[in-house]
Amino acid sequence: IRTGYPEVIFGQGKTPEQLREIISFMISKESNILATRVDPEVSGYVSDLSPDIQYHKLARCLTIRKKPAEKTAESIAVVTAGTGDLPVAEEACVTAEIFDNRVERFFDVGVAGVHRLYDNLDDIRKCRVVVVVAGMEGALPSLVGGLVDKPVIAVPTSIGYGANFSGLSALLGMLTSCAAGVSVVNIDNGFGAGYLAGMINKL
Amino acid sequence: IRTGYPEVIFGQGKTPEQLREIISFMISKESNILATRVDPEVSGYVSDLSPDIQYHKLARCLTIRKKPAEKTAESIAVVTAGTGDLPVAEEACVTAEIFDNRVERFFDVGVAGVHRLYDNLDDIRKCRVVVVVAGMEGALPSLVGGLVDKPVIAVPTSIGYGANFSGLSALLGMLTSCAAGVSVVNIDNGFGAGYLAGMINKL
Amino acid sequence: IRTGYPEVIFGQGKTPEQLREIISFMISKESNILATRVDPEVSGYVSDLSPDIQYHKLARCLTIRKKPAEKTAESIAVVTAGTGDLPVAEEACVTAEIFDNRVERFFDVGVAGVHRLYDNLDDIRKCRVVVVVAGMEGALPSLVGGLVDKPVIAVPTSIGYGANFSGLSALLGMLTSCAAGVSVVNIDNGFGAGYLAGMINKL
Amino acid sequence: IRTGYPEVIFGQGKTPEQLREIISFMISKESNILATRVDPEVSGYVSDLSPDIQYHKLARCLTIRKKPAEKTAESIAVVTAGTGDLPVAEEACVTAEIFDNRVERFFDVGVAGVHRLYDNLDDIRKCRVVVVVAGMEGALPSLVGGLVDKPVIAVPTSIGYGANFSGLSALLGMLTSCAAGVSVVNIDNGFGAGYLAGMINKL
Amino acid sequence: IRTGYPEVIFGQGKTPEQLREIISFMISKESNILATRVDPEVSGYVSDLSPDIQYHKLARCLTIRKKPAEKTAESIAVVTAGTGDLPVAEEACVTAEIFDNRVERFFDVGVAGVHRLYDNLDDIRKCRVVVVVAGMEGALPSLVGGLVDKPVIAVPTSIGYGANFSGLSALLGMLTSCAAGVSVVNIDNGFGAGYLAGMINKL
Amino acid sequence: IRTGYPEVIFGQGKTPEQLREIISFMISKESNILATRVDPEVSGYVSDLSPDIQYHKLARCLTIRKKPAEKTAESIAVVTAGTGDLPVAEEACVTAEIFDNRVERFFDVGVAGVHRLYDNLDDIRKCRVVVVVAGMEGALPSLVGGLVDKPVIAVPTSIGYGANFSGLSALLGMLTSCAAGVSVVNIDNGFGAGYLAGMINKL
Amino acid sequence: IRTGYPEVIFGQGKTPEQLREIISFMISKESNILATRVDPEVSGYVSDLSPDIQYHKLARCLTIRKKPAEKTAESIAVVTAGTGDLPVAEEACVTAEIFDNRVERFFDVGVAGVHRLYDNLDDIRKCRVVVVVAGMEGALPSLVGGLVDKPVIAVPTSIGYGANFSGLSALLGMLTSCAAGVSVVNIDNGFGAGYLAGMINKL
Amino acid sequence: IRTGYPEVIFGQGKTPEQLREIISFMISKESNILATRVDPEVSGYVSDLSPDIQYHKLARCLTIRKKPAEKTAESIAVVTAGTGDLPVAEEACVTAEIFDNRVERFFDVGVAGVHRLYDNLDDIRKCRVVVVVAGMEGALPSLVGGLVDKPVIAVPTSIGYGANFSGLSALLGMLTSCAAGVSVVNIDNGFGAGYLAGMINKL
Ligand SMILES: Nc1ncnc2c1ncn2[C@@H]1O[C@H](COP(=O)(O)O)[C@@H](O)[C@H]1O
Ligand SMILES: Nc1ncnc2c1ncn2[C@@H]1O[C@H](COP(=O)(O)O)[C@@H](O)[C@H]1O
Ligand SMILES: Nc1ncnc2c1ncn2[C@@H]1O[C@H](COP(=O)(O)O)[C@@H](O)[C@H]1O
Ligand SMILES: Nc1ncnc2c1ncn2[C@@H]1O[C@H](COP(=O)(O)O)[C@@H](O)[C@H]1O
Ligand SMILES: [Mg+2]
Ligand SMILES: [Mg+2]
Ligand SMILES: [Mg+2]
Ligand SMILES: [Mg+2]
Ligand SMILES: [Mg+2]
Ligand SMILES: [Mg+2]
Ligand SMILES: [Mg+2]
Ligand SMILES: [Mg+2]
Repeated sequence: IRTGYPEVIFGQGKTPEQLREIISFMISKESNILATRVDPEVSGYVSDLSPDIQYHKLARCLTIRKKPAEKTAESIAVVTAGTGDLPVAEEACVTAEIFDNRVERFFDVGVAGVHRLYDNLDDIRKCRVVVVVAGMEGALPSLVGGLVDKPVIAVPTSIGYGANFSGLSALLGMLTSCAAGVSVVNIDNGFGAGYLAGMINKL
Repeated sequence: IRTGYPEVIFGQGKTPEQLREIISFMISKESNILATRVDPEVSGYVSDLSPDIQYHKLARCLTIRKKPAEKTAESIAVVTAGTGDLPVAEEACVTAEIFDNRVERFFDVGVAGVHRLYDNLDDIRKCRVVVVVAGMEGALPSLVGGLVDKPVIAVPTSIGYGANFSGLSALLGMLTSCAAGVSVVNIDNGFGAGYLAGMINKL
Repeated sequence: IRTGYPEVIFGQGKTPEQLREIISFMISKESNILATRVDPEVSGYVSDLSPDIQYHKLARCLTIRKKPAEKTAESIAVVTAGTGDLPVAEEACVTAEIFDNRVERFFDVGVAGVHRLYDNLDDIRKCRVVVVVAGMEGALPSLVGGLVDKPVIAVPTSIGYGANFSGLSALLGMLTSCAAGVSVVNIDNGFGAGYLAGMINKL
Repeated sequence: IRTGYPEVIFGQGKTPEQLREIISFMISKESNILATRVDPEVSGYVSDLSPDIQYHKLARCLTIRKKPAEKTAESIAVVTAGTGDLPVAEEACVTAEIFDNRVERFFDVGVAGVHRLYDNLDDIRKCRVVVVVAGMEGALPSLVGGLVDKPVIAVPTSIGYGANFSGLSALLGMLTSCAAGVSVVNIDNGFGAGYLAGMINKL
Repeated sequence: IRTGYPEVIFGQGKTPEQLREIISFMISKESNILATRVDPEVSGYVSDLSPDIQYHKLARCLTIRKKPAEKTAESIAVVTAGTGDLPVAEEACVTAEIFDNRVERFFDVGVAGVHRLYDNLDDIRKCRVVVVVAGMEGALPSLVGGLVDKPVIAVPTSIGYGANFSGLSALLGMLTSCAAGVSVVNIDNGFGAGYLAGMINKL
Repeated sequence: IRTGYPEVIFGQGKTPEQLREIISFMISKESNILATRVDPEVSGYVSDLSPDIQYHKLARCLTIRKKPAEKTAESIAVVTAGTGDLPVAEEACVTAEIFDNRVERFFDVGVAGVHRLYDNLDDIRKCRVVVVVAGMEGALPSLVGGLVDKPVIAVPTSIGYGANFSGLSALLGMLTSCAAGVSVVNIDNGFGAGYLAGMINKL
Repeated sequence: IRTGYPEVIFGQGKTPEQLREIISFMISKESNILATRVDPEVSGYVSDLSPDIQYHKLARCLTIRKKPAEKTAESIAVVTAGTGDLPVAEEACVTAEIFDNRVERFFDVGVAGVHRLYDNLDDIRKCRVVVVVAGMEGALPSLVGGLVDKPVIAVPTSIGYGANFSGLSALLGMLTSCAAGVSVVNIDNGFGAGYLAGMINKL
Repeated sequence: IRTGYPEVIFGQGKTPEQLREIISFMISKESNILATRVDPEVSGYVSDLSPDIQYHKLARCLTIRKKPAEKTAESIAVVTAGTGDLPVAEEACVTAEIFDNRVERFFDVGVAGVHRLYDNLDDIRKCRVVVVVAGMEGALPSLVGGLVDKPVIAVPTSIGYGANFSGLSALLGMLTSCAAGVSVVNIDNGFGAGYLAGMINKL
C-alpha cells in the first residue's frame, strides 16, 4: 500500500518457520525490511536469506536494507533513564533508522542522576522530536517535556518490580505528566515510538 | 520563558477569586491567554476584565486574544466519535486555535456509523496532524490510524458507563492500537492534544 | 441430558491419563466428542483410542465424529483481526462444526487493514450470526457490528503486551462497544463463542 | 439506514433542550422512537410533542409508537434476580417491545430464593432467547444457562456495594460462567440486551 | 500454645531441607502434624521420618497422626463445583480431618449441572457447617447458602482463565453473595476453610 | 420459609413508599422485622406503623420486635478498631440482637492503641464467636485471630481515604490474614456478619 | 500516653457536635491540640471554646497552642509541585509546627518549571528532612531525592483527573522512584508526612 | 558524587558478564561495594575478583568492604513477620551494614504470634529507627508503629498467594496504617528501606 515504505514484521509469537516464510516472501520486493521482537536463535535460523540481513542484538530486531539510506537532515533524539530500558530504546532507534531517519542516542540520563541530562540538553534541543524511554516511576518524560520545546513521545517500560506492576506505574505517570507536549505509546512499544517519531520528523 | 506564547491556566479546582487574580495579573502582559476547565458561572465572574475576553461554552474555555491571529497554512484535523465527546474535542480545538493553528472539525464520524468517516477521509488526509477524540471502546483512532498516513493523537474520554470505568476502556484500547503512528494523552485531556498537535503542526 | 449432543471435555489442567480415561468412557456412547485445550503431545497419547479421532493443531482441539455431519443450511461467520488470534478463532470454528454448523472463515481482516474487511462484507452479511475474534484494542467487533445487521459474538483474546493486560483492553473495549447487537464471552473463549453461535444458528 | 427500524436516542448526558430537538426532528419520520436513560423531569419537558408519547417510569424510557405493533410469535424471556435490577430489566423489555418482540417477564427469581426460578422454568424454556439481569455476584445467568437450552444474554447491574465495585463482581462472574450458551453485555446495558435479544428472536 | 492441637506447616516456598528440619523437630512432640502445599518430590524426601507419615497426593498435604482419631459426632460438608477445584477441596478435607472432624465430600455438584446438588441436598443439610469450593464465577456458595440453613465458608479458587484474573472473579462473586450466612477465605485457601470449619464444628 | 425467623429488608435503594408498603405487609405476620440501611428521614416516614417500631440511629436500622426476646446463653463479641467503624459494627449488633443473640460490644480497641484490646481480651475470649469490624489497613482481625481461639468474622469498612480505595485495603488485608480461623464478609456488610455470627452462636 | 505530645483529632467524618465534645474534653489537659480535616463551617462552630484556637484555612486544620513553642534548631523542608497540592502541603506544615518543628516552605517548584527547584536547592539541602507533596505523575520526589542527600517523605495527592485515578498514578510513581532515600505515605496524608518528618527531625 | 559512599549495583536483569565488568571497574576505587539481587550462580562467576568479596546467600547480595567498618553507635531494628520475608529483611540488613550502621535483627515476631513481639519490645524501642518487613496482610508495621515511638519504615513483601496479588494487599495495608510515624517503600525493596534507615540513623 505505502510503496517504498519498509515492510514491518512483528516477530513476537511467530515460529521460526513462519518468520522465515514471511521474510522469504518479502525479500523479493524492493522495500527494506524490519522484523521486531526476534530472539537471537531465531535470527540465526534466517541469516542465510540475504547477505544484507543484519541482527541488532540489543534491540532484538532484524533489518534488511535494500535501498541505500538517504538519512533525514534533522534528527530524532532517543533518551533513556536506565540500563534496563536499553532494549526498548534500541527498538525505537532501529525502527527510526530503517525508515531513513537520523537518530541521536542520549542513554542513561535518568532522574536519579539528573546532571547528565543537563549536560546533553543543548544537543537534545537541536533534534526535531524526542523519544523518552523510562521504566519504574517514568518521571523522565515530564522533566524532558518541561525543558525541551519539541514533541515528546514517552515510552513506558516494564522494567521494575513491585508497585511497577509490569509497567503500570510508568504508564500512568507519563499519561498524567504535568508537562505539555508529551504523548504516550504502549508499554515497551519502542517500535511504535520510533515509527511515530519518524513520521513527525519527516513532516 | 517561552515569550510570545499564550499563557495557559488550568481552571479546574481554582476558586473564582483565584482565577480572577491570575487573569488580572496576566492581562498586563502582551501574550494571549487560555483558561481551560472554566465553569459558565465562573466565566461570568471575570467577563469584565477585558473587552477581548471570550467564553467557549462547549469547550468550557476562556480565551483573551491580544495579538491578531496569524494562522498556520496547514491544518489540524480534530475528529470525534460521538456527541458526548464534543466538550473534549472543542477543548482541543480552542487550544490549537489560540496557538494560531488552523483547525478543521470532523465531528460525529464514529465507528457505529463508519460511512461518515469515509465521506470525510480525503479532507482529513489533507491535514498535517490528526486529533481523534473517542469514549467507550475508543476504536476510532485505530481506524483513522489505519486509513491516514499522518501522526494521530488519540484522546480517550470518560464518556460512557459500566465497563468504561471512567475512561479506562478507551484509554487501554488506544494504547494497544494495532495501527502504527498513534500516541495517546490523558483521559479527557483535550488541551494536551491540542497543544501537542499545534507543536507538531508548526515543526 | 441433551441426548445426541456432542460430549465436550475441557482439556486444560487435565493430565494425559485423566483425558484418556474420560475419552475412553465417552467413546462407548453414540455422541460426537470434542476436547478443547489439548496439547499436541497429549493428543498423541490418546490417538489410538479411535480411528475417527482427529487433532486440530491450530485449534488445539480433538474431535471424534461418530455420526455423519448434517450441516446447517445457513452459516456462521468467524472473523479475526490478526494472525495471533487464529488459535482462538479455530477453537470457535471446530466447536461450531462438531455441532454440525456450516462455518465460513474470514481471517486477518482487522482494523489496521480495513479494506480487507470491506472486500468480504457481502459474504459476511449472508451469514446468520457472526463471531469476531480480536486482541489488543479489540476494535473489530464494533466495526463489524456497525456494518452488519446480525448478532455479533465478540471474543477478546489475550494476544498483545503491555497495556493489553492479558486481554483486559480488548475485553473492556468490546463490552463498551458503541454498536448495538454485540455481546461478549470470556477472553480466549473460542469454545463459548462457537457453541453460542451454533445455538443461535439453529434457532 | 435500517429503514423501518425504530430510531434510538441515548438520553444520558443530553440536556432537555437537546432531547426535545432530536425528538422533534425524528417525529416527522415514520419510524417508532425509543429514548433511553430519560429522567422523569425531562420526560415532562417533551410530553407535548406527540399524543403517542409514552414514558416508562421504571425503565426510564420514552417511546413513541407510530406503526401498530405486529408482535413476534415467539417470546423473549427477561429474568431478574432482585428488586434493584428492575430498571435495567425494564429497559431491556421496553427496548425489545418497541422492536415488536413479545416479551415475558420473570422477575425476582434470584439465587437466594431459587425455588421461584424452578416454578417458572417451563415457561422460560418456551421462550426463544433469555435475557438475565443480575447484580452483586451475578450468579443467576450461570444457573439459567445450565437449566435452559437457549441463548442467554447476561446483563450485569451496578446494584450492590463494597466488593461489587460498581458492577465489576457481576460482570466478571458472568464472563467466567461455567454454563455454555451465555454471553454478556455492558454493566446496566438493558438496551443492548433487549436489542440483541430482539435481533436473535427475529432470525 | 494451644497444646494438643496439630502442628501446622505451610510448605510453600520452603526448601526440602527446611521442611525436613521442621518436621524432624516437631515429630518429637506428641501432637499430630499437618504440612500443606508439599510437592510430591518433597514428600519423598521426608517419607522416612516416621512410619506414620502419610502423603495426600491430590491435597498436596503431608500428615503424621500421633494420637488416635476421636472424630466429632457431627460432620463438615465439603462441596465443590468442578474437577479443577479438587486439590483445594481436599486441602480443606485433610485439614479438617487431622483436627479430628468427620468430613463428608460432595464433589462436582456445580451450577452447570445443578441437579446433582439437589440430589445431595438432604445429606448436606445434615452437616453442621458447609465448605463450598468453586472457581470461575464462584456461584455455588450463593446457591448452597440459599438452600441450606448452616454457616457456609466459601473458598474461591484460581481455576479458570481470562476474566477469572487468578481467582478474582470467584472472590468478588462470593463476597457479594446475596445469600446470608456466607463468609469467604482467601483464594485457594483450603487450609483456612478446613480449619475454620473444624473450629465451628466443635463449638 | 424459615418460619419464626425475623423478616429482613435491605433498605438501600428503596423509596420511602416502597419501604412503608413492605413493612405494612410484613407487620401482619408474627415475625420480628429488621430493616437495614434506613436513613433517619425514611424512619420518620414509617414510625407510625407500629408502637413497637424502633430506630437505631447509629446502625441506621429499624426493628420491630413482636416476640419477646429469649436471648442466647452465650454471647457474640463485636469488636471495632475506630470511631468511623461504629455504624457498621452497630448494624452487626442490631442484626444479631433481633435474631435473639446476646451481644457484647468492644469498641475502639484498634491496633493504634493496642493496650485497650489486651484489657478486654479475657471478656472477648469468653464469647462464642467474634465479629471484628475495621477500616483502613484492617489489621485488627489478624491480631484478634492470633489471640483468641474462636471463629472470627472480619468486616472491612470503607472508612478511610487514598489507598483505602473504598475499603479495598481492609478487604485484601483481611483475606490474606496470617491468623487461622478468620473469614471475611463484604465491605460494610455489618448485617452479613451479625447474621452469620448468630447462626454460629446458635449451633 | 505520650505526655506532653499534642493531642491529635482526625476531623473527617466527625459531626460538629462530636468535634466540639472531643475538643472540650481535651482542652482541660495541658497539651497542645491539632484537629485535621476540619471544614470552615465546623471551625466556626467550635471557635468559642478557647481564645487560643486558630483555624488554618488552606490546611483545613484547627490548632490550640497551650504551651509556648520551643522550635527545633533545624528545619523541615516542605516542597510542592503545583497549586492544587497546597492544602495537603499545609496540613503537613501545620502538623510539623504544632509539634514544635521549624518548617520551611518551598511551594510551586514542580517538574514543569524545574529551574525554580534549582533556585531553592541550597536552602532545601540545609534542612534535616524533606517532605515532597505532588499529584498527577508525582515525579518531584524522585527529582528531589536525586539532588538532596536527606530523607525524603513523599506525599502523593489526589489532585488530577483521568489516568490519575484518584492519586494512584502519583502513588505508584513515588513507590517505584529510582532515587534512594525516598519513602511514601498515603495519598493526601499531609498529617502523616508532617508527623513523621517531625519525629525524624527531633532524633 | 557522594565520595566515600559505597557504590551500589542493582543486579536484577544484568547478565553475569555485565556484572563482572561493572564490579571490575568499581573495585579500582576506594569505596565499599554492594550488589543486590545477585543469584548464587552469578556470585560464583565474580568471586575471584577480590579476596574481600562476600556473598550473602539469604539476602542475595554481594559486598566488598575496602574500608574497615566504623559502625554507628546507635542501631537500626529490622523486624519481620514470617520466614518468607527473610530475604527482603536481610537485603535491608546487609545494605544498612555496608553503610556502616549497627543493625539488630528481630525476626519472626509477626501478628500471628504477637507475644514474641512483646518479648522484644524493649530492645526494639532502644533502636533509633525501625524497619518492618511483612507480607500477606502487612499488619505488623501498624502494630509496631503503635507501640514504638520511632520512625517506622514499612516494607511490603510479595510473599503470599491469592488476594495478596503480588504484594498489593500488604502494600495497601501499610499505606493506610492507622499508626502515625509509618512510611512505606516499594514491595520487596529491602535495599531502599536499609538505605533510608541508615540515612536517618546517621542524622
Ligand atoms: N514491537 C512492536 N510493537 C507493536 N507493534 C509492532 C511492533 N513491531 C511491529 N509492529 C506492528 O506489527 C505490524 C506487523 O504485524 P504482523 O503482520 O503480525 O507481523 C507492523 O505493521 C507494525 O504496525
Ligand atoms: N441505554 C443504552 N445503553 C447503551 N447504548 C444505548 C442505550 N440507549 C441507546 N443506546 C445506543 O445509543 C445510540 C443513540 O445514541 P445517540 O445518537 O447519542 O442518541 C443508539 O443507536 C443505541 O445504539
Ligand atoms: N445491610 C445489608 N447488606 C447486605 N444484605 C442485606 C443487608 N440487609 C439485608 N440484606 C439482605 O437483603 C435481603 C432482603 O432484600 P430485599 O428483599 O431487597 O429487602 C435479606 O434477606 C438479607 O439477606
Ligand atoms: N489527616 C490525617 N490523616 C490520617 N490520619 C490522621 C489525620 N489526622 C489525624 N490522624 C490520626 O488520627 C488519629 C486520631 O483519630 P481520631 O481518634 O479518630 O480523631 C490521630 O492520632 C492521628 O494518628
Ligand atoms: Mg516541552
Ligand atoms: Mg496511519
Ligand atoms: Mg450490527
Ligand atoms: Mg444452556
Ligand atoms: Mg443459608
Ligand atoms: Mg484464632
Ligand atoms: Mg537523595
Ligand atoms: Mg509509633
